[in-house]
Amino acid sequence: MSDTQYIGIFDSGLGGLTVAKSIIHTMPEENILYFGDTAHVPYGTKSHKQIRELAVNDVRFLSRFPLKAVVVACNTADSVAMGTLQEQFDLPIFGVIEPASHKAARTTRNNRIGIMATSATVRSGAYEKAIHRYNENAQVFQKACPLLVPLVENGRYRKDDPVVQIVLKEYLDELTANGIDTLVLGCTHYPLLSEAVQSIVPELTVISSSEAAADALKRGMKELGLCETEGDGIQHYYVSDDAEHFEENARVFLGEDMKATAELAQI
Amino acid sequence: MSDTQYIGIFDSGLGGLTVAKSIIHTMPEENILYFGDTAHVPYGTKSHKQIRELAVNDVRFLSRFPLKAVVVACNTADSVAMGTLQEQFDLPIFGVIEPASHKAARTTRNNRIGIMATSATVRSGAYEKAIHRYNENAQVFQKACPLLVPLVENGRYRKDDPVVQIVLKEYLDELTANGIDTLVLGCTHYPLLSEAVQSIVPELTVISSSEAAADALKRGMKELGLCETEGDGIQHYYVSDDAEHFEENARVFLGEDMKATAELAQI
Repeated sequence: MSDTQYIGIFDSGLGGLTVAKSIIHTMPEENILYFGDTAHVPYGTKSHKQIRELAVNDVRFLSRFPLKAVVVACNTADSVAMGTLQEQFDLPIFGVIEPASHKAARTTRNNRIGIMATSATVRSGAYEKAIHRYNENAQVFQKACPLLVPLVENGRYRKDDPVVQIVLKEYLDELTANGIDTLVLGCTHYPLLSEAVQSIVPELTVISSSEAAADALKRGMKELGLCETEGDGIQHYYVSDDAEHFEENARVFLGEDMKATAELAQI
Repeated sequence: MSDTQYIGIFDSGLGGLTVAKSIIHTMPEENILYFGDTAHVPYGTKSHKQIRELAVNDVRFLSRFPLKAVVVACNTADSVAMGTLQEQFDLPIFGVIEPASHKAARTTRNNRIGIMATSATVRSGAYEKAIHRYNENAQVFQKACPLLVPLVENGRYRKDDPVVQIVLKEYLDELTANGIDTLVLGCTHYPLLSEAVQSIVPELTVISSSEAAADALKRGMKELGLCETEGDGIQHYYVSDDAEHFEENARVFLGEDMKATAELAQI
């Protein structure tokens, strides 16, 4: 197995597993190495300086293994640290913001796009910049949603949960008041909330940054000639803290049918 | 000012400011040095190993200044790391769990005490052990409340907030079903929720670990002959990340009348 090469995926915690799930579904023949920096979750409320340092450490950990590509499966890290990572590592690095922005820019019909994201992602303005590269007429309305990661990490994302309903409605009200027709779930935790979101605003087209990222990764890897052509990929999971509780929590993000255990990363 | 000595206080973030506030009210002549490890908030969901390492680093930072005592203003750190800290540092170290446990053990009339705390504090069993030292007949019912720190840190603690009401009710239901007559708010963030808690369970005696800690600190320092006898104390605040937002957030914990700015700690 010495020529096994991995797609290395990292996130601040478990949210990036929604990206891993989409990648496994889209490219089942690829080998996946997932690192969740659970010792430092959440990234979304940290300073840009600290997020950049953590992201570099994350890729440094993944680089101990033979990699053919890295996926920044965290909107916060992507929005703040992508430039730093591309400078420091000689690897194809894919993100989540570019694909979701591309998709949103082409999907909107009234050029009014809403973004739900963490405070750090909103502060970075990364979505607005990326969307304007594809559609300069689009107006982008952002809403920082700091309570959604804790809610999802505590298993509260179902559409019939009154807490989820109230909190989501508050966040969505400001966006819908601006007449958006397209909404980007700009955090890899948020795909779990997509049913709840659609139950509140069924008229909106909802774009998951996790699914968009997997599709774009496949296209990008094909262009670079990096795709596996056969076989079943393997998956390894690492976390930086509390590996024991990974299995039960991971099920929420990966889906009931995917069983995964994690090792504690020595970093 | 070379003979200025401080009471060093630390917490994972801003919750410990409720302890600082109580100490400033109880001992206005003391000099206070507060360190909030905002780069690593929250502690309550981390492993015991990581919490111990962080707590040692926190006291190491405080020790750069002339200290006469240290207050662990974080129930999670107290419950997991107090032994380690007392071994490693030659300073009087005071906590929050012992004082609240003592008060609860003497307050209960039916020997049924409820504890609301973080997951790590609950897992440690520290409250149960401490309460049994003072009242071996007491039954202790614990409830991990992982959503309360994110709610409070996002300014949601008011009793008329429907999200606060729903979440608190869920946590409290299990405790009240056990017939408790006394409830310990076993996290330094929770005193902000005490009005909301009392609105749901007005019949309970609610004990704030922050107030109990300040009272016990005063008694302990008197015994050790460490109290200042005159003058107005000064306060310095340090955080490990994002000092810019300290002022607005600190006001929530310290109260409207206390203005504080923080410096970024170089650790």
